[in-house]
Amino acid sequence: MLFFTEAMRFYRIFALLFIFTLFFMADFNINILGCGSALPTTRHLASSQVVDLRDKLYMIDCGEGTQLQMRRMRIKFSRLTHIFISHLHGDHCFGLPGLISTLGMLGRNGDLVIHAPKEIEEYMLPILKVFCKGLSYIVRFNPIDPTSYTLIMEDRSVAVYSIPLKHRIPTCGFLFAEKPKEPHIIKEMTDFYEVPVRWMKEIKQGKDYITPEGEVIANSRLIRPATPPKRYAYCSDTAYYPAIIPYIEGVNLLYHEATFTEKELKRAKETFHSTAAQAAAIARDAHVKQLVIGHYSARYDYTDELLKEANLIYPGTIVATEGMVLSL
Amino acid sequence: MLFFTEAMRFYRIFALLFIFTLFFMADFNINILGCGSALPTTRHLASSQVVDLRDKLYMIDCGEGTQLQMRRMRIKFSRLTHIFISHLHGDHCFGLPGLISTLGMLGRNGDLVIHAPKEIEEYMLPILKVFCKGLSYIVRFNPIDPTSYTLIMEDRSVAVYSIPLKHRIPTCGFLFAEKPKEPHIIKEMTDFYEVPVRWMKEIKQGKDYITPEGEVIANSRLIRPATPPKRYAYCSDTAYYPAIIPYIEGVNLLYHEATFTEKELKRAKETFHSTAAQAAAIARDAHVKQLVIGHYSARYDYTDELLKEANLIYPGTIVATEGMVLSL
Repeated sequence: MLFFTEAMRFYRIFALLFIFTLFFMADFNINILGCGSALPTTRHLASSQVVDLRDKLYMIDCGEGTQLQMRRMRIKFSRLTHIFISHLHGDHCFGLPGLISTLGMLGRNGDLVIHAPKEIEEYMLPILKVFCKGLSYIVRFNPIDPTSYTLIMEDRSVAVYSIPLKHRIPTCGFLFAEKPKEPHIIKEMTDFYEVPVRWMKEIKQGKDYITPEGEVIANSRLIRPATPPKRYAYCSDTAYYPAIIPYIEGVNLLYHEATFTEKELKRAKETFHSTAAQAAAIARDAHVKQLVIGHYSARYDYTDELLKEANLIYPGTIVATEGMVLSL
Repeated sequence: MLFFTEAMRFYRIFALLFIFTLFFMADFNINILGCGSALPTTRHLASSQVVDLRDKLYMIDCGEGTQLQMRRMRIKFSRLTHIFISHLHGDHCFGLPGLISTLGMLGRNGDLVIHAPKEIEEYMLPILKVFCKGLSYIVRFNPIDPTSYTLIMEDRSVAVYSIPLKHRIPTCGFLFAEKPKEPHIIKEMTDFYEVPVRWMKEIKQGKDYITPEGEVIANSRLIRPATPPKRYAYCSDTAYYPAIIPYIEGVNLLYHEATFTEKELKRAKETFHSTAAQAAAIARDAHVKQLVIGHYSARYDYTDELLKEANLIYPGTIVATEGMVLSL
């Protein structure tokens, strides 16, 4: 009996190590840098997130204090290549000037692309002129149309689409759709059939292998399919807006703003924000796999009420906090 | 014997209470909100201070994160009336847009005056245009000449002067010279001589009192002089620049930047910053009553070396930290 208990303890360590390794192997993580709303509190920071996908970093929103929060969370400045700004309210973009300056001081070379509604240039160009003379890298602006669902940017790993939201000023969310990964070659099989290297690319693309003797080896015997691509949707700031559902249907993770509880429904409508219940309703109706809420009004000392409300409609809702890392 | 020990303990409480009360009665306090330099660290925040003088708040510099630090230090937003910006480097002014927006959200009415080198308008006007439509109060800019010692602003409590500094771009420090307070009327004496109320103003201004019988009562018998007015000098950012000494001679408190230690003297010269030893030399040569250093380079994990270096030249140097309140 004692032996079994000891053995269990021993193997439990491996189980934990396995989970731990899986977590760090995950190559699609969302870092929550700030999830408060406009009025500063000592509990939350202004909006900012960093999507960490296959070793590249994509920032969503950049409220005041974002660069400091990157330092605290040990997020590498050098890996950041694209910044997506949802709308031109200060709590979503007042961290840009500081971050851009710091990247310059750190000797950055590669371009930084800022995808944002077109007013971004009116805001940022004078700042770059006054503060960033002789910057070591180029800041490029990609004006986006926040009123339509459009492909904004794509690279080898991801395609990013705008999701039109309903706020006081033109605002969009972002859908990060991971590109399909290549299937894995089953080495034992290709070794067995002595498949030449020049065939590998085509096999990965789905072709069967034909041996010199003319035997057809079905593609499915040579490859193991990759894990299916994942999707992350960021929706902040917005009123309750079911029109977004088709764009976010079935995503692996949805971040939806939940500025108020239902008690403040009137205020939510006036300010074009959502309640926690509304965020949960969107998540439920879009059949998303996981919901995380944020952008809490400064009036809430604790997020208990928001969570309770969301959980009634979408059980298992996550309440975002600064420093949280969510793995897809 | 036991009686005396007990009595001493008892009276010691009053002694402590007295010191405590004096501290909170002090009506000229310097709040250190941030005392780091340009590169963000988890140890220090960008430059900002709030001078709290006779119930009014005057801010000096406003680096990114200043509004959040005000919340943390429970500094009342509504009491802030003037902001002084030393120079247009981001770590001294990137907190302005967020603070101005927040003051608007809090329903401010009174004007806010920003005293700064003239480039401030090129930086801030586009931001006000994009982000502050319908702001509930007026932001006024007072362009100052950072190359001369000039009176920038005065009210009933204080006169603020620019102190020309030596930095990579036009930069000035600020001298806060408290206005003399009115002397205190000695009530026992004015009651004794039955001085009519209409005389009080003139007596406070230094006049003798003449009784109806023609007897002259010397002014010095009727009043107790007020505590002498105090002065605070803020000098950041600057290379070692003894030309400032006449302006800061004998001030009650000098904040002088100390970005580097003497080991980095070359770097200090190149970047137009000071070493801790240079800050201390300025304090010693200007016979200031107290020195506080700040604006530490991100390379220093601890301030021990900076303090050691300064103390060799100006014993009793204070090392600024975020959250510190210094009473003059």
